[in-house]
Formats: sequence, structure tokens, C-alpha cells
Amino acid sequence: MSNTRIERDSMGELQVPAEALYGAQTQRAVNNFPISNQRMPAQFIRALILAKAAAAKVNVDLKQISEGQGKAIVEAAQGLLEGDFMQHFPVDIFQTGSGTSSNMNANEVIATLATRLLGESVNPNDHVNCGQSSNDIIPTTIHVSAALVLHEQTLPALLHLVQVIEQKAEEVHPFIKTGRTHLMDAMPVRMSQVLNGWAQQLKANIGHLQDLLPALQALAQGGTAVGTGINAHPEFSARFSQQLSSLTHVKFTPGKNLFALIGSQDTAVAVSGQLKAVAVSLMKIANDLRWMNSGPLAGLGEIELEGLQPGSSIMPGKVNPVIPEATAMVAAQVIGNDTVITVAGQSGNFELNVMLPIIAQNLLSSLELLANSSRLLADKAIASFKVNEAKLKEALSRNPILVTALNPIIGYQKAAEIAKKAYQQGRPVIDVALEHTDLDRSQLEVLLDPEKLTAGGV
Amino acid sequence: MSNTRIERDSMGELQVPAEALYGAQTQRAVNNFPISNQRMPAQFIRALILAKAAAAKVNVDLKQISEGQGKAIVEAAQGLLEGDFMQHFPVDIFQTGSGTSSNMNANEVIATLATRLLGESVNPNDHVNCGQSSNDIIPTTIHVSAALVLHEQTLPALLHLVQVIEQKAEEVHPFIKTGRTHLMDAMPVRMSQVLNGWAQQLKANIGHLQDLLPALQALAQGGTAVGTGINAHPEFSARFSQQLSSLTHVKFTPGKNLFALIGSQDTAVAVSGQLKAVAVSLMKIANDLRWMNSGPLAGLGEIELEGLQPGSSIMPGKVNPVIPEATAMVAAQVIGNDTVITVAGQSGNFELNVMLPIIAQNLLSSLELLANSSRLLADKAIASFKVNEAKLKEALSRNPILVTALNPIIGYQKAAEIAKKAYQQGRPVIDVALEHTDLDRSQLEVLLDPEKLTAGGV
Amino acid sequence: MSNTRIERDSMGELQVPAEALYGAQTQRAVNNFPISNQRMPAQFIRALILAKAAAAKVNVDLKQISEGQGKAIVEAAQGLLEGDFMQHFPVDIFQTGSGTSSNMNANEVIATLATRLLGESVNPNDHVNCGQSSNDIIPTTIHVSAALVLHEQTLPALLHLVQVIEQKAEEVHPFIKTGRTHLMDAMPVRMSQVLNGWAQQLKANIGHLQDLLPALQALAQGGTAVGTGINAHPEFSARFSQQLSSLTHVKFTPGKNLFALIGSQDTAVAVSGQLKAVAVSLMKIANDLRWMNSGPLAGLGEIELEGLQPGSSIMPGKVNPVIPEATAMVAAQVIGNDTVITVAGQSGNFELNVMLPIIAQNLLSSLELLANSSRLLADKAIASFKVNEAKLKEALSRNPILVTALNPIIGYQKAAEIAKKAYQQGRPVIDVALEHTDLDRSQLEVLLDPEKLTAGGV
Amino acid sequence: MSNTRIERDSMGELQVPAEALYGAQTQRAVNNFPISNQRMPAQFIRALILAKAAAAKVNVDLKQISEGQGKAIVEAAQGLLEGDFMQHFPVDIFQTGSGTSSNMNANEVIATLATRLLGESVNPNDHVNCGQSSNDIIPTTIHVSAALVLHEQTLPALLHLVQVIEQKAEEVHPFIKTGRTHLMDAMPVRMSQVLNGWAQQLKANIGHLQDLLPALQALAQGGTAVGTGINAHPEFSARFSQQLSSLTHVKFTPGKNLFALIGSQDTAVAVSGQLKAVAVSLMKIANDLRWMNSGPLAGLGEIELEGLQPGSSIMPGKVNPVIPEATAMVAAQVIGNDTVITVAGQSGNFELNVMLPIIAQNLLSSLELLANSSRLLADKAIASFKVNEAKLKEALSRNPILVTALNPIIGYQKAAEIAKKAYQQGRPVIDVALEHTDLDRSQLEVLLDPEKLTAGGV
Repeated sequence: MSNTRIERDSMGELQVPAEALYGAQTQRAVNNFPISNQRMPAQFIRALILAKAAAAKVNVDLKQISEGQGKAIVEAAQGLLEGDFMQHFPVDIFQTGSGTSSNMNANEVIATLATRLLGESVNPNDHVNCGQSSNDIIPTTIHVSAALVLHEQTLPALLHLVQVIEQKAEEVHPFIKTGRTHLMDAMPVRMSQVLNGWAQQLKANIGHLQDLLPALQALAQGGTAVGTGINAHPEFSARFSQQLSSLTHVKFTPGKNLFALIGSQDTAVAVSGQLKAVAVSLMKIANDLRWMNSGPLAGLGEIELEGLQPGSSIMPGKVNPVIPEATAMVAAQVIGNDTVITVAGQSGNFELNVMLPIIAQNLLSSLELLANSSRLLADKAIASFKVNEAKLKEALSRNPILVTALNPIIGYQKAAEIAKKAYQQGRPVIDVALEHTDLDRSQLEVLLDPEKLTAGGV
Repeated sequence: MSNTRIERDSMGELQVPAEALYGAQTQRAVNNFPISNQRMPAQFIRALILAKAAAAKVNVDLKQISEGQGKAIVEAAQGLLEGDFMQHFPVDIFQTGSGTSSNMNANEVIATLATRLLGESVNPNDHVNCGQSSNDIIPTTIHVSAALVLHEQTLPALLHLVQVIEQKAEEVHPFIKTGRTHLMDAMPVRMSQVLNGWAQQLKANIGHLQDLLPALQALAQGGTAVGTGINAHPEFSARFSQQLSSLTHVKFTPGKNLFALIGSQDTAVAVSGQLKAVAVSLMKIANDLRWMNSGPLAGLGEIELEGLQPGSSIMPGKVNPVIPEATAMVAAQVIGNDTVITVAGQSGNFELNVMLPIIAQNLLSSLELLANSSRLLADKAIASFKVNEAKLKEALSRNPILVTALNPIIGYQKAAEIAKKAYQQGRPVIDVALEHTDLDRSQLEVLLDPEKLTAGGV
Repeated sequence: MSNTRIERDSMGELQVPAEALYGAQTQRAVNNFPISNQRMPAQFIRALILAKAAAAKVNVDLKQISEGQGKAIVEAAQGLLEGDFMQHFPVDIFQTGSGTSSNMNANEVIATLATRLLGESVNPNDHVNCGQSSNDIIPTTIHVSAALVLHEQTLPALLHLVQVIEQKAEEVHPFIKTGRTHLMDAMPVRMSQVLNGWAQQLKANIGHLQDLLPALQALAQGGTAVGTGINAHPEFSARFSQQLSSLTHVKFTPGKNLFALIGSQDTAVAVSGQLKAVAVSLMKIANDLRWMNSGPLAGLGEIELEGLQPGSSIMPGKVNPVIPEATAMVAAQVIGNDTVITVAGQSGNFELNVMLPIIAQNLLSSLELLANSSRLLADKAIASFKVNEAKLKEALSRNPILVTALNPIIGYQKAAEIAKKAYQQGRPVIDVALEHTDLDRSQLEVLLDPEKLTAGGV
Repeated sequence: MSNTRIERDSMGELQVPAEALYGAQTQRAVNNFPISNQRMPAQFIRALILAKAAAAKVNVDLKQISEGQGKAIVEAAQGLLEGDFMQHFPVDIFQTGSGTSSNMNANEVIATLATRLLGESVNPNDHVNCGQSSNDIIPTTIHVSAALVLHEQTLPALLHLVQVIEQKAEEVHPFIKTGRTHLMDAMPVRMSQVLNGWAQQLKANIGHLQDLLPALQALAQGGTAVGTGINAHPEFSARFSQQLSSLTHVKFTPGKNLFALIGSQDTAVAVSGQLKAVAVSLMKIANDLRWMNSGPLAGLGEIELEGLQPGSSIMPGKVNPVIPEATAMVAAQVIGNDTVITVAGQSGNFELNVMLPIIAQNLLSSLELLANSSRLLADKAIASFKVNEAKLKEALSRNPILVTALNPIIGYQKAAEIAKKAYQQGRPVIDVALEHTDLDRSQLEVLLDPEKLTAGGV
């Protein structure tokens, strides 16, 4: 810090970079927390600035601050959002557990800009933070930022993935493959049935996420320090949600019980738990793709994923399923992020959970990772893979498990004997069945036809 | 095994206890899996037997088995459920990943009993398992058993806990206590606000659980081996759900996509994730209780929990908060159970997840632990604790943070100076405020009245 | 309870089953904790009884109890251990967090038996629990029970698994298979290299477990209520470890710092973390086995696992890799058990961690599950699988990645072109290399010989 | 990208920023993986560059590359490390699971710089990557980077924390406080005993970490593509470790079995498991500090942590325990990072684990977070807290649990009666004991002296 100025807060003086928009409390936090060198997520800061703008509008309406102060705060917030605002938010994720340092960072930066705009002092605490406490604005910002990323990124990306899978299912409908249970050859399935199964996994999870939106869009704002709303106008909570809704085009509502929303982070825990469920689905889909693509010669070789980059620094010509791998790693990370949020959520005591910054960070990380990897999985893996029909057919034709179709006619026990003999002798099951049943070849051909065997699935 | 008989299956002969109702495949499983010495949960076996009865009724209606066979199977199933059925289900949890051994165990036991009832052979595979595969009946049984325990035990227990908390909130409404954020003295809250906050945490989580019920009540049945429904009658799936609904008085429906319900365990993952969220809430509530009860002299001492047992084998007279402790341990166990289900859920490949037995075990464990501990927490901790009013009042009266109420009048900076001075000099904040503001004592008494300071909360 | 007697403790009277060996405090716990219907693990109770015997011997030596009392306690303990002792230990796992109820259960049962033996009253607190507190004996019992199971079951089973893998490696040394990285065909490896890799994974983990033994064998005993050893003779701690070592033939030592051993469960957390690492290794080995065994026709089909039971209730002739599946489920369960222990470990406050019962339960569960599944994996999967040489050879012969061996001669770029052409045209890489390099066939045969290509591994 | 140049690799041409040091494969990865916007950790890239320098030296010695090429590569690597190298490493964490993109990024950047230095072409694959594969160099880099951060940051920080705690223990030795078990008043302990307990928790964990160092310092290098060492000189592995040891002053060794080190990430799993154990200890210590500091008036108020920043944006004068809170959040994050590494570790198949980038990221994150937060906890919380002696004494003087000291004389039952009466009547236990025992006041004063009651602890 070559050029500095002196700032002061209720604890005394300290040096701040001369040109910094922030003030003493931000600088204290920078000094106090040299831990991760990671700042709070941009989406969190964006939501915090939006919340400050919404609060200022409400405070003007409720005559808590002057119209000039309010206008300056709103303009300052909008100006920040239009530029590279992250440069003004240097506070580490691992800070005070309430996120007060980030709240004061926003208060200070906006107060500085608003003071410049207004030409008279706008105070970080008394004006920008008017009617608020870190204890309501930070939980609010967690909900708002997560809801915005869900609406803007994660849900659209998941829906896009569903759409691409369903389109691909239509394309690959003609192909029938050997089903696998316990990784062992089982009855045949259509490739489209496999893909529509994936799509349904995702659609169910999307539905569960949407069920959580009302809770996520219910805000702690108005509870201030401990939930009682001390120092906030009685109408602040409802008006704030209205203002924020009109700023964001997402419907926010005042929480029914602000003590629960400040004292716990249960909604974040529930949403993260459901994001983990999405991750579990993606892991399954990514692994199915990786295994279908495996080989090409010594693996299953059922499909060929688009080649995106040389696969090996030593083995020439190798192409790897890199997008499903990245997706699987995203899934693992989201599962771990959920552990953080779970441990954080169960650590709360009394009127405030004080693991808010890592809840924000891990929740937004999960939301963004799932969004970005879902799009890639859709566009660079599922949309473009090719089916290796020859390999599918070869495997189907010699699968003794097809004998299952004869159970209703000859019974499980006899069918088992036929299957075993076919395996042992390496012969088509139809030939063995001809010898051991009263059915003739044409009957057996109908009964063992893979097309027919896959007809029942929904 | 002193007395044995010889049984055989498609793999050959083996010895079975002479009097056992089960047959060869159950015995193979008993021999193969001496791992945990823990059997599948009783609620799982109960649901499996119910499903066999429902299937038999459908199979009669669809003319897949004879009326006599069907009636004998249903009667056998009902007879089992009325007695100590677990003695007939000796298979270890850690068995084949599909739960086939447990399915065959049920098929064999019911076939034996049905054969006795009917006087002619009822076959485990061809009659009891008719139209079914382990691959649809075991996922179905996971959903059915979890739904039944949720409806019969977990949701009622959680609702009971909410009700007891809300009743207690009314009882303790008169008491005001020092709020705590960061564990530090903060603005006051009413004891009722604290409890209603807990109630709201639980109500929100109950709502999220209820949102998952339609998914949980949608069944894989009818998909048979791989989801295509091979060997099942086209109407089997819908009729099975109807029959099971009428047997259980819970509304089950055929799954929209049976591939998803067999190939994944996403619903179990989602439900378990939400049970984890409930556990997180309970951990917070249990810890709040433990800390409020702490002391009695060197702790917070705000409440006194009912004494249930001597607390120490060495320290006479010690009474510990054992019910909240047990609840907290349940919460930790449920969080760990969720990890098992997550790892199991993400391990699936292709047409079948093969970690079904541990998913069943851990899911039912979470449901039952939460049910039983919620009732205890309600009845033996929350309903009966007493409030230590003297302690609450003493702490409130000397809390300098009350100065917060003066912010709107004198500003944050000046309020901070007053609070600091009050701390340093150990004086009531009202006295210091008198010296440093223009407010007179009667004004200050109104402004700093704890009753008023807690009035805003919802 | 038809026949009961009246017992009393410091809280008053209550009814106990007439014939029960336990007394009032055990009965209170039975009444207070109807939660899981699961009792503390037998290995835990066994270690607790052993500890009581060791303590009695020390107390006689230190003249804290009479010789007659001591002898009676030791005899009572030994008698219990020789019979079905679990019937006398009905306390639920989810009880007081200190495990005091289980400690008092042991004190009461032993006191009853000792009183009968001695013909005069032996007191549960003053004699059986002499010099002890639940706060040192329960942490001690966690360490002792875990150490005994590690020495008697888990380590021998893991070493047996290593030995069986290494024997099998010798047996399958002749076989060369296609290596797989990213699931894609890569350079060849010997089957023995694969197995020796697994063995080394396990040996490394066994080493890490052994490194933790000194910590696990260091005991909290002697710290009594809070670590200060109040009411324990100064020599109690050292003599207790000696006595217990001679009773168990495992070397136990007094902990260096008893506050750490009572206030935390860090050793259990560390041991569980390492058991999780073992589980991770087993998951990898089990999955490698499952995939090598997959097919037999539409999978990799490299090996054939011993068939242990019919694989499907619907698909006749299907045989599944049930032992690796059970092993994989054990791995998932151990990972989840570790989550429980982690959450429990981080929940401690001040002088006592109060999640001891679930730490005991989950730690012993992990130790026993790993022991039993490792033996099964060794004996019923690895020892007996057969190699499908024809399939291995077929895959090897057409693997274009072998071109890697030419990198040092022709460079990565040119090698990549050859590999691509070989893939596209479905031709052996040697033929394509002949056209595109100056190397003649005999040179190429030497360079591309799989035997030679696998020669370098250690 | 306004100014670009055309680059090509084995897959064809693409555009690269004109001034970029990296080439086609890095650019492909940048294009392929727009997922997290987070780059691989700087410590990982640093270790990768160091490994490239070591490999070049070995390759010259073994005559695999020319002396000029080797010298240029080493100089290029050193030049990079002296500057802001991260600008040249733009690849996302969520990339190919092998980390090949990061390996090729290093190969390309170093090749460009080396070519400039040498004046003739140095090839990324044939020269910089000579004798290596991503499949050995990336696992190697995980081990090397983790070992370096452990030696340089984490272990010194933990040892510093131990030292500060032990110094503080000496300072606070005179103070005796009420012990707490189950959060309830228990027998007294010295403040120094509490702190030395923490120190011992950390020392035990440090020992366990040190036990893992030999495994962490054993490297996969030399295994190349699948562990067989194809294309690597037989002496490469041993010489590489030597070179790297001399470059880093940490003793690296060639792994005993390279298949295990490439096919699994077991060492990372074990180390992360132990870092989680450290996190669990830190959580306990941080929470003890937070609770001892709680209040100051309505909490325990035993100590006063240094005030570092204003604690509230709304409550003036509030000071919060921000450093212990940040530490607790670090602990939660490390626990979650371990979940990621566990899921990643158990996801491996056959010859390569393909979740390497997230293993690297989460492992290094845990190591650095623990290092930085341990230092802060030592210097800004433990070193500087003050003891509130008055509060400690007041609590001690009225603690009826002190009656425990009379057990050996009057028996548990009678002691319990005295304690209960003292609680009920709010009288000092000594007064009640006088009435109910034969002991006189001077005897009781000796027996109940807190100094003496804490004398036994080690």
C-alpha cells in the first residue's frame, strides 16, 4: 500500500488504500482474514448490491432516509453493477461468520459513491444499512443470489439438458442394446428408453428444485438483528420484497417467521441437498456415457462421443470422454459442497447461524457448476455422440438372457437350463430352445425378437 | 444345523434347516453373506410381503395365476404379517446389490405357506414372483416401506413435535431473554419467538418432505427386469398400485418412467437429503436446549430440563440433558445415513442400481430414528422444561446492546460509544445514555423497554 | 413386565423386571430411550466388562476395595464373558451422550453377580465403578474395543486379502490384458500387475492403520470426571493399562494427556478416516472385479467370478458378482459411518465429547464390516475367479494404442497419425506402421510385443 | 481474442491468442471447459513446473534429450517460477479427469520459452514431456505439491499453534475454572489443563500427518501411461526423485508400486482424511474459545478475545469472536473437501483415477486453509485473550458438584443427597456437607479446595 488515507470506525483509525471506495471496516476485514485469498462469489455481491438498492427505495418511501440519499444509493448500486464491481469487494470468504464484513463492504462502497453523487455525506450504517442488520441482509442475500442463479442459469441449463436428451432419444430410437443389471447382460432395451430414463431422472429433480423455490424466495429481511425487526419499520419487510421483485423479475416474499430465517440456514441446507440429488443423477448419466463409449475395442464400444482434444500426452490417437469426466467431477464437488453446507447448517446456535459466508460460497458454487456442466454435457456429449450399431447387434444376437421371454411358457427352471447350456456351448439361445421345448423356430423367433422384447417400456 | 432337509434351485442342491419356511436361495444367501449379522429392516420386509399380496391379487385378476394360488398367497402373506415374521427373513443387509436374495426369501416363505394352505405346489418364481423381477419389486419396496413409515411414524412425530413446541411457546410467551448472535449478547427476544422459530424450521421441512411424497409413492412395479416390463401384463403396473393403495390406505401410483425408477435411486436420495435437512434442524434445536439448560450455575441456566436419570457415575447430583443429546446423536446418524445413500445413489450403472439393500436400511433407519427421537424431544424435554426467570431478568437488565434501540435517534457511532462505556464501567446502559444524549430517563425507559424491543417479531 | 421388583437410585424408585441382573439406572435408560431398538455393540460391552475386571484388580492392589470384592467382580465379569452377556445389556445406542447408562448397566450387572458370589453387597458405584467415571471408562472402552477388533478381526482379514491377492497374482501372471485409462483402451498390463497394484493399495492402508495403533491403545482411564483424575489413585491409570494388557494380550498404555482423550474423540476420528481410506480401496478393487467380470458377452468378459447363487428372480441363468457388490456396499456404509464419526467428533464441547455411543457403534461397525467383507472378497471372489484368455488376446491384438511404443523412434505426432488410421480402417497397427515408417515387420513385432510392453512395471 | 495465431495439434488447427505462450492443446481445453472459471491451484502449477525441470535434467543424464534442450527447459521452468506464472495456466479445474490439459499446458508453455532460449524447436510432447505421461506426472504433482505445502505451510503453522497454546497455558496456569461435561457444571479444571488438552489434540494429529509423509513423498513418476513405465528409461523413476529432492529440499522417493499410485489416489484420500481429523480438532478448539468468550454478560464470560473489528452493522459496541468463527468455517470446508476427495477416490477404475484435478484442488485447499487459519487462531485469538478471573471464581465457589471429592469418604449416594440439597437451597456445598457428614469445616475446606481438586491431571 504505497498511497493510503486514514479512515476510522467505532474501533479507531486505520490505513486504507488512497483510492479505495471502501472504508475502515472493509480494510479491517482485509487485514484480519488473510485465509483463502478467495473473495465472496460475484453473484453474492451482485445480489447484495441489488438488496441495498431495494432497501434504499423502501427507506425513501418510509421516510427513513431522504429522497436524495435514496436516489444516490440506488444510482451508486446500479453504477456498480454495470461495471467490474468485484474489484471493490476484497473481503475473504473466511471472515466473520455473519458476513458482516461483506455487508459493511457494500455499505461503505455504496456510501462513498452515493456521497460523490449527492455531494453530501451518505453514511454506511445510518443510510445505506438503514433498517437492516447483517443478520437479515446476509441471509437475504444468500436466498436472493441462489434464487437468481437458479432462475437464470441452473434451471435453464437443466431444462436444456433434458431437451437435448429427449431430442437425442428420438434420434436413437431405432437402436436396441443389451440391457445391463449388475453390469451383467440382461434383457434388451431401446437406446431411447435409456435416454428417456435419464431425462426423467432430471425432470423429477427439476421438479423437486422448483418445489423449493417458494422457500428460497422467502426472505429474512426485516428481522434485523435477532428476528424481532428492531429498528426496522413494520412495513419494511413486505415493501423490500416487492422492490426486489420488481428489480429482479423474480417473486420474492417476506418470510413468515424471521427468527427461523436468521437463526437457521435450513432452506440453504434443503436446496443444497436437492442439488446433491441432481449431482447424483448427473454422475449416473456421465458414467453411463463413459461406459457406453468405453473401448473403442476392448470396452463396450456402444457409442462414440465427439472427440474434443487429444487424450494423452503419451498415447497417440487416444480420445477420452472428457466432458462426462468433467461432469462427474462437478458431481463429486457438489456432493462435497453439500457436506460443507450440512456441517455449517447444523452448527447454528440461538439467534444467528454464523457460517453464512461458506454457505453462500458453496451453494453458489454448486448452482453454477451444475449449470455450466449440464450445458456442456448436453451440447458436447449427448447431442453429438454416434451409435455403433454393429456392436449393439452383435451383442444382442448372442445374449442367452433373452430366454427370459420364455418363462411364462416353459417356467423359470427350464428356462434357466436352456440359458446355461447356451452359455456353455456358445450357441444362440434359439437353437438350444428348439431342442428343449415344444416351440418351433418361427414361434421362437417371434418370442425372442428384441423389438418386441423392448415394446413394453414407458 | 442339526436337522436339515435338502433343497435345490437352478444351481443345485443344498441343506436347509428342516423346519425353515424358506428354501434354497435364501439358504444360499445366508451362506454367502456372513457380513453384518444385521437383517433387512422389519418395515422393509413388511412392505415386501404387502407387495406380494397385492401382486397376487392382480395376477388373479389378470389370469396369470389361478384363483386358488392367488388366494393362498394373499392368505400366507397376511398370516405372516400377523406374526413374528422376521424369524423367517435371515438374509444379511450386505447381500446381492439388487436385493434378489430378500425377494427370493419372501417368494420362498410365501410359497411354502401358500402350498400348505392350498394343498398343491405354489412356486416361488412362477407364482409368487409372477409378473415381477427383483429389479422392480425391490425398488418398489423401498418406496413403499419409506412411504408407510413416513405416513405412520415420521410425519406424525414431527407434527407432534411442532404442536408441543407451539403449545410451549404459548406457555413461555411472558419470558424475555437476551438474544445471542455469534454467541454474544444481542437484542432481546421473547422465549416464545425462539420456540416459534424452531416450530417454523420444522414446519418448513415437513412441507418439503410432503412435496416429495408423490415421487415416493410412484412405484417401479411393472418394469420387471430392466424397465421394459418384459413378462409383466401391460395392466400390471397400474393395477398393482391400486391394490397396494387399498391394502395400505396410502395412495400409490405407477411410475411415469420405470427405467428411471429401476436404473436410479434418485427419489431415495432426494428424500434422504430432506431427512438430513430435518436432522440439521433438530441438531440446532437440541443444541439450543442444551445450552439454555447449561449450568445450572456456571452456564447459561435459562431453563431447567426435566431430570430423567442420574447424570454421572462419579459426580453425585449431576443431571444431564440426555434427551437433547440423544436427539443430537440421531441427527448425526441421519447425516451419516445420507452419506451412505448418496454414495450408493451415485454408484448406479445402466439398468439397475445395485446398492439397494443399504439404501433401504439407511433410509428406514433415518425415518424411524427421526420419528422416535422427535417424540421424545417433544414429550420429555420441550413439554416439561421450566424457565429460570430470575436468571433471564438479571442478564437482560445489564445488557448494553440494548443501546441499539437508540440508533435511529442518535446514530450508530454515538450509540457505540455509549455501549462501550457501559461495558467498561459495568453500568446500566440507561445511566450512560442519560449522560451522553439529550433523552431523559422516562424517554429512555420507554425506548429500552425489553417488552417493546421484542414486539416486532413475526 | 409381568414380574417386577422395586429398585431405587439417587432419583427414587422404579420397577425393574424381577429376574433382571441390572438395576435402577439401567431400567431408567431403557425407559428413557425407546429410539433405535439397537443395543450397544457386543464388542463394546465385552471391552467394557474386561475394563471392569481390570479396574477391580487394580483397586484391590491399591486397596480401594477389599480383596473379596475385587475377586467377586473379576469372577462376575469373567462369567458374563463366557455366556450370552448381551441379554443383560438392553440400553439403546441413542442414550446419554456420555454412555453413562451403559457404564451403569455394566456396574449394576456386575455388582449383582458379584454380590451373589461374595454373599455381601458389592455396590455398583462405590465398588465396581471405583476410581472410574463414565467420562474415562467409556472413551477407554471405545479405544479398547476398537483395538481388539482391529487386532483380532480387521487387520488379519485385510492381511489375508493381501495374501490371497498376491497368490492369485502369481497364478494369473501369464495373462496380459488391455490397460484402460479414462475407460479407454490404453497400453497393455499384466493381470499380475493389476492385482499387485490392489495388494499395494491395501498394504499401504494397513500400514497407515498400524501407525494409528499406539494412539488407539493409549487410554483415557485415570482421568475420571474431567481429566484431572479426581477420586482416582495416582497409580490407577498406569496399573489399569498393565492389567488390561495382560487380560487381552494387546499392549495398552496410559494416555499422555487425559484431558485430550476425554474432551475429544480425535483418535476415533483419525482411525475412522483411515478405515474410510480402506473402504475407498475396496470400492476400487470391487468395481475393477465387477467390470472385468461384466458380460459375459456384452461386457468386458475378462474374468469369470465363481457363481454363488442364481442372479435373478426373472432372468434364468443369470449369475451376478454378488460378493464384490456386497463389498462395495460395505465401502459405502463405512464412508457413511465416517461421516457420523466426523460430525460427532466435531460436536464436542469443553471437558467431554457427548456423542460417544454413536462413535462406538459406527467405529465398530466399520471395523467388523471391513473384516468380514475382506475375507469374503478374498475367498469367494479373488481366489476363485477364472481368466478368459481368449477375450484378452482378441482385444490386445487389435489395440492401436500399442503404437505408443514407437514414440521414441518416430515421434508422438507421427504415431498419432498411424493410430488414427488403424482405428478408422480397423486394421492392425503393425500393418499401418509398416506403410508409414522405415521399420520392417520383424522390428515392429519386437517393438509392439505385449510381453515386452509390460516388462517395466514394478 | 482480437489478435490470434493459428496453432495445430494431432486433431487439427485452432486459434490461439497471438501472444500466448501456450499452444493448441491448452487452447482446446480453454474452449472445452468453461465450467468453474477457477484455475488449477498455483501450488499445483508450481510443483508441475518443478517436476518438468527435474525430468529435463534426468532426460539429459539419460541421453533422452540433448543437453541444450535440457538446459533450455530447466531455464524456462525457473524463469516461469520467478514470475507471475499463473497467467499462462488458464485451464479450468473441471477438465479432463487425468489433468492432461494442465500437463500439456505446462509442456506447451515451457516448450515455447525453451525454444526461444535455445533458438531451435523444443517439442512439448517429445522433449518437455519426454519419459512422462499425464498419468504419472499428474499424480506425481499432486503428491509433490501437497508435500511441499505440508512442509512449508501446514505443519509449521500447526506447530506454531501448538507452541502458542502451550505458552498461553503457562500464562493462564493460575486460573481454575468450572469444568463442563454435557455442558453442565462438573469438577474444576485448570485453564492450563484445558489448553494443554488442545495442544495434545493437535500434537497427536500432527504426528499422524507426519506418519503419512513417506507415502506422500513416494511418487508415481516412471509409471508413464499405465504403470508399466512404457517409454520411460528404467532409471528414470529413481533419478527423477533424486533431482526433485535436490530442487525442493524435500526427500522424494520412487513409489514401490506404480500401478497403485496411478490407478488409485489412496494417499490423497488418507492425507485428506487426516486433515479432516485436524479440522475436527480445530472445530472443537474454536468452539471452546467461542463459548468461553460468550456473553460478555449473558454468556459464560470466562475469557475476552481480542477485539478485531466492530461486530455488528446494527448493534453498536458488539465485538464478536471472528477468528474462531473463521476457523470453524475452515474446519467445515475441510470436512467438505474431504468428501470430494473421498467420492473422487472411490470413483477410480482400472489403470487410472480420472478425478485428479479436483483431488488436487481440494487437497491443496485444505492444506492452505488449515495453515492460514491456524496461524490466525494462534496469533489473533489464543495469544491475546484475557481471563476474567472474577467470573471464574464466582462460578467455582457455588458449584455443588465439588461434593464429588467426598465420594471416597461418604459414598456416592450420600454425596448425591448433599449436592441436591445445595442446589435446591442455593447454598454452598460445604455448608450442607457440614450438616450431613461427620467432617468438620477445616477438613471440608481441604477436601473441596479447587487447587487440590485439579492437581491430578496430566
